[in-house]
Amino acid sequence: MNYFYLVPAASVAALFFAFYFYRKMMKKSEGTEKMKLIASYVREGAMSYLKQQYKVVTLVFIVLALLFATMAFFGLQNNWVPFAFLTGGFFSGLAGFFGMKTATYASARTTNAVRHSLNSGLQIAFRSGAVMGLVVVGLALLDISAWYLILDFFMEDADAGHKLIMITTTMLTFGMGASTQALFARVGGGIYTKAADVGADLVGKVEAGIPEDDPRNPATIADNVGDNVGDVAGMGADLYESYCGSILSTAALGASAFVLNPSMQQNAVFAPMIIAAIGVFLSILGIFLVRTKEDASVKQLMASLNRGVNVSAVLIAICTFGILYLLGFSNWVGLSFSVIAGLVAGIIIGQGTEYFTSHSYKPTRNIANSALTGPATVIISGMGTGFVSTVIPVTTIVFAILISYLAAIGFNVQHMVSAESLSMGLYGIAIAAVGMLSTLGITLATDAYGPIADNAGGNAEMCGLEPEVRRRTDMLDSLGNTTAATGKGFAIGSAALTALALMASYMEEIRIGMLRLGDNVIQFADGKTVEVARASFVDFMDYFEITLMNPKVLAGIFIGSMMAFLFCGLTMGAVGRAAQKMVEEVRRQFREIQGILTGESTPDYARCVSISTKGAQREMLLPSLLAIIAPVFTGLLMGVAGVMGLLAGGLGAGFVLAVFMANSGGAWDNAKKYIEEGHLGGKGSDAHKATVVGDTVGDPFKDTSGPSLNILIKLMSMVSIVMAGLTVAWSLL
Amino acid sequence: MNYFYLVPAASVAALFFAFYFYRKMMKKSEGTEKMKLIASYVREGAMSYLKQQYKVVTLVFIVLALLFATMAFFGLQNNWVPFAFLTGGFFSGLAGFFGMKTATYASARTTNAVRHSLNSGLQIAFRSGAVMGLVVVGLALLDISAWYLILDFFMEDADAGHKLIMITTTMLTFGMGASTQALFARVGGGIYTKAADVGADLVGKVEAGIPEDDPRNPATIADNVGDNVGDVAGMGADLYESYCGSILSTAALGASAFVLNPSMQQNAVFAPMIIAAIGVFLSILGIFLVRTKEDASVKQLMASLNRGVNVSAVLIAICTFGILYLLGFSNWVGLSFSVIAGLVAGIIIGQGTEYFTSHSYKPTRNIANSALTGPATVIISGMGTGFVSTVIPVTTIVFAILISYLAAIGFNVQHMVSAESLSMGLYGIAIAAVGMLSTLGITLATDAYGPIADNAGGNAEMCGLEPEVRRRTDMLDSLGNTTAATGKGFAIGSAALTALALMASYMEEIRIGMLRLGDNVIQFADGKTVEVARASFVDFMDYFEITLMNPKVLAGIFIGSMMAFLFCGLTMGAVGRAAQKMVEEVRRQFREIQGILTGESTPDYARCVSISTKGAQREMLLPSLLAIIAPVFTGLLMGVAGVMGLLAGGLGAGFVLAVFMANSGGAWDNAKKYIEEGHLGGKGSDAHKATVVGDTVGDPFKDTSGPSLNILIKLMSMVSIVMAGLTVAWSLL
Repeated sequence: MNYFYLVPAASVAALFFAFYFYRKMMKKSEGTEKMKLIASYVREGAMSYLKQQYKVVTLVFIVLALLFATMAFFGLQNNWVPFAFLTGGFFSGLAGFFGMKTATYASARTTNAVRHSLNSGLQIAFRSGAVMGLVVVGLALLDISAWYLILDFFMEDADAGHKLIMITTTMLTFGMGASTQALFARVGGGIYTKAADVGADLVGKVEAGIPEDDPRNPATIADNVGDNVGDVAGMGADLYESYCGSILSTAALGASAFVLNPSMQQNAVFAPMIIAAIGVFLSILGIFLVRTKEDASVKQLMASLNRGVNVSAVLIAICTFGILYLLGFSNWVGLSFSVIAGLVAGIIIGQGTEYFTSHSYKPTRNIANSALTGPATVIISGMGTGFVSTVIPVTTIVFAILISYLAAIGFNVQHMVSAESLSMGLYGIAIAAVGMLSTLGITLATDAYGPIADNAGGNAEMCGLEPEVRRRTDMLDSLGNTTAATGKGFAIGSAALTALALMASYMEEIRIGMLRLGDNVIQFADGKTVEVARASFVDFMDYFEITLMNPKVLAGIFIGSMMAFLFCGLTMGAVGRAAQKMVEEVRRQFREIQGILTGESTPDYARCVSISTKGAQREMLLPSLLAIIAPVFTGLLMGVAGVMGLLAGGLGAGFVLAVFMANSGGAWDNAKKYIEEGHLGGKGSDAHKATVVGDTVGDPFKDTSGPSLNILIKLMSMVSIVMAGLTVAWSLL
Repeated sequence: MNYFYLVPAASVAALFFAFYFYRKMMKKSEGTEKMKLIASYVREGAMSYLKQQYKVVTLVFIVLALLFATMAFFGLQNNWVPFAFLTGGFFSGLAGFFGMKTATYASARTTNAVRHSLNSGLQIAFRSGAVMGLVVVGLALLDISAWYLILDFFMEDADAGHKLIMITTTMLTFGMGASTQALFARVGGGIYTKAADVGADLVGKVEAGIPEDDPRNPATIADNVGDNVGDVAGMGADLYESYCGSILSTAALGASAFVLNPSMQQNAVFAPMIIAAIGVFLSILGIFLVRTKEDASVKQLMASLNRGVNVSAVLIAICTFGILYLLGFSNWVGLSFSVIAGLVAGIIIGQGTEYFTSHSYKPTRNIANSALTGPATVIISGMGTGFVSTVIPVTTIVFAILISYLAAIGFNVQHMVSAESLSMGLYGIAIAAVGMLSTLGITLATDAYGPIADNAGGNAEMCGLEPEVRRRTDMLDSLGNTTAATGKGFAIGSAALTALALMASYMEEIRIGMLRLGDNVIQFADGKTVEVARASFVDFMDYFEITLMNPKVLAGIFIGSMMAFLFCGLTMGAVGRAAQKMVEEVRRQFREIQGILTGESTPDYARCVSISTKGAQREMLLPSLLAIIAPVFTGLLMGVAGVMGLLAGGLGAGFVLAVFMANSGGAWDNAKKYIEEGHLGGKGSDAHKATVVGDTVGDPFKDTSGPSLNILIKLMSMVSIVMAGLTVAWSLL
């Protein structure tokens, strides 16, 4: 229990430094009156959106909490679940709120700082991004440690091994709160930002021929607001969810893997939390390492960013050996390699993303070249590249799964899938995800810093500052691209591993659900009986017939694969519709308000902001609710086997689809930038126009549908977990 | 055995009527000298392509046959396999050759007939399509019945039940021959046709502003050749493969399901063949029903086409009850409903395709509307529509799986996945696929008729015939769209069910492989032993740990999902590259050959034909070989569990991806046609240009990558089946 207190300590440290960086940033000047004004527009738009979104989400949370309370009332769930669910959602929302607030205060200050030097701009933008990173990990560890202490105190001490299983599976349900919040944040934010972006581009850039972020474009404020609600708040909620999910599912699997060894069981539950806690301290260290001389070159700035991220990663790898040794794992070396497998996989996926989406490499340049034959070939080659780019992440994840599993069982290949190996190996996979996310405090900082720099550029443009300022903010922006690619690698990779761990946790919840209903013994076809409390995963697979020949499993795999596609379709359609409305509004303003294009009168920014807000709110409900309903419906129709099929199919197809969409979108974006840098005819050429089409198509790919899929695959698992009791009690087939 | 002779009889009848229709068509006049000349260009181009393709494919077949012979030499396969494999490929190639030869003779004759009346054009085009349909089913049943008789004669009569298992699993391997041929035909043909089409459109329509099929466009002959090699030869090989695959896998599962009941076992093997045979007779009947009065309206022509297809479908449903009753199945009613579930599912999928891709309905009209805001929104909404459109086929297939399974086991829900239920239920799923394809003779006719009408239109345009002729060929073309949608429904639906049945057949092959290596007994973790020869599917699932918690299965699912995407990426990339070369050549000819655009000199058609041919040959190898290598590699790394995961993941993701690509492509095509009919500004408007971009992107979607995926999912199963012996002998994990 002693080491456990590192967890709340890390939480406090994270929140303290977040506050410290926030205060330091707030002391800087926001620049001229005009800069302040523009920044306040963006801030107000963002905040009003967030309020609107939280209203809708609160309603959904109340309905779901009542549903869980009803389930608890009928003995299908325990009484803590509704509360755990609510706190998960609340803290996730809080993290998004703080992160976005900081970001919207930081952007004009970054612009102002950049007027003096590149380095001071980097400092403000990066440390404001760090606020987001630290708030996310701080609140997550706060929620985790508080609930652990509460449940440990209140839950009856029936049987030592069983108690920890109850605690950890209950805690998992606050993961569902975080997932639900994240889905709404990603889908709503994603629709908002891309409706505004696509709308602004289509009329502003293409029809009116004015540059990006031009103050004459009525949708430009909405576009800048979108960066904040989509890329900052949305991403924060997303990673809050991954972070909690990976820690909690590892804890749950640890409780189950070591159920026969009470002294180790406790430490197996603590291990992921403590690795995360140490990761927080190392992240803070890493953040302080990001600093350079005042007259630093871009290359030096880059090196400095990388230094921060890499030092944290290397140190956490080393520390893991120590942590697992001190916690008394007999196979501490093997398990440490599981963690490292996760870390390395995250880095490789990031490098792969970089290769396929940066215009320093062939794939994106080929897309740019195909622009010479028009937009159709840009789309064809971009999609082709995206499809092919799935090879690296999938291969990497496959090896990460096999290696982290095998390392955790001491490479006992002969009995790779025996009852003991299975629970230990799955624990290894889960802890690999924890490893990947352990330095989230700093990796998220490099991610959240991107939109801040982007908004800083927008501010400079709208205020008509000297081109040099805009050039510097663009440099800051592009600087983050490499680290952001790595960040994305960690996000998607950890989602896959976490979803896998959650499938195992689902089986744990099925166990609890059976015990709650008084099904204490399972009987097999050959007459053999096993106590539910002692049944292994192998027994469960056997009893529920979760094999690849079971038609229910296969039907589930089909439905799961389809869910990923359907979800993408709905979110893409939503962006299309919302963007259409934005286009009409911008055209209307150009037509009806005299003198916008000559700069004589100001466009009605607020109206565009409100169109995006309403569009996002209206459109986010259907896909989000569908993600919640599908696993419930599948469970009621086809039982546990159907749900497991659904999760496996959703994970397989969803992961690959998410990578495809993110990478196609990223590659189109950079193919356009490549031409804008003066290649193949440069800005304004036909080739450039063709890549603008690609970029516009890529917007919902990479910023709406792709990232939302990340959450979909985890949310479906979370819903299944929370609803497990229902599936145990009723199912048609 | 008596009923069995219906199978060769049906084969002979099919081939006889194919020849009869061919001779009747050949007696018609091909029209003017110019029409003959153009037709001969297309025919020569198509034939020279096919020869080229068969050369490459023959090489691949020789290599693979030698590999199988080596495996047989080392006792990892039986000695018949190389020969069965070769005949499968040979007959499939032959069907493609005859079908295409007929189609290329029929197009000018259709044009000429249309000059007199619409009805006589329909007769020629449709009956020439029927040649393809009948040749495919005729050769397939010929191959099946011949091999059955040969193996029945030569194989030793070790143990009655075992002998039929050996025969049917050996016959499955000629399915691999057909699959391999089909993959090359689809991928090669698909690349050819779309390279020519995209190339012709990009320079001809977009840059030079000349209409489709204009004789001044150097790529126009290649484009017309493409319709034949892609849509006729490619589709023929595709459906030959589905047809054989469904019959053979049902036979194999029947041999295994009834292994303890020798009298029924034989009939269970014959049942799919006899249903198919009766289906052939009914298809011929249906083909003769397609006729109307000389002065028929389009509506009457349509009704006549539908009558032919529907009468065959209804009659086969009715006959099935009789067939299964006469064959002595105790659950003949249930099994008949399995067959009907397949038939109905095919129709529903077809209707769904029609809804999402025809411009009579909202989804495609919405895409057309989005053209008002440019090409980017066309792409976004088209992709969104394609993603959402996956709901209908997937839901339908899920219900088809569950219903055909449950009906076959007499709705014994309590013991749905017991050892007995499993083999019976899987037989039910397999026979549903047979039901779907039983009337292939006529459904394929309605499919193959499309490209003939298309080429007839091309001939009219190139020969400068009166606009009325072109208008009529366009009517013929659009007439086939509805029936073609139904045809596509049957093709994709049957692919999913067949692939599922093949997964079960794979487990049968593993059994044979183990017996061949002398592994006669399997021992479970708890010490229980089971004879391999008597082991049930449940035993195998248990022994090989093919559950959704096994990391090898999960890794396999990831790889399988990825394979579908990678394969699409490679084929899309191939089309992009080949089209690029075509664009350059067409531009070169416009530039260097004086007077092409004024019509004073003839472009160099042959050079474009040869560029498409070379491009397709070069580009088809990598994706095709990858599809063959992936299952082998997975098997060697992760054993049976990994392969089953690969197949399940590939099936789930591949099926959904294939539907998405086919439907997006179809919807873009028709959105363009909708505008060309005069809506939203009509031809030449900006909206029209935007939909041309969509159509161009959709070309490789719907005619290259999408249809090839259909085959990929079955080929991977077929390869696994043939290579099962290798996986049994060696695997790393």
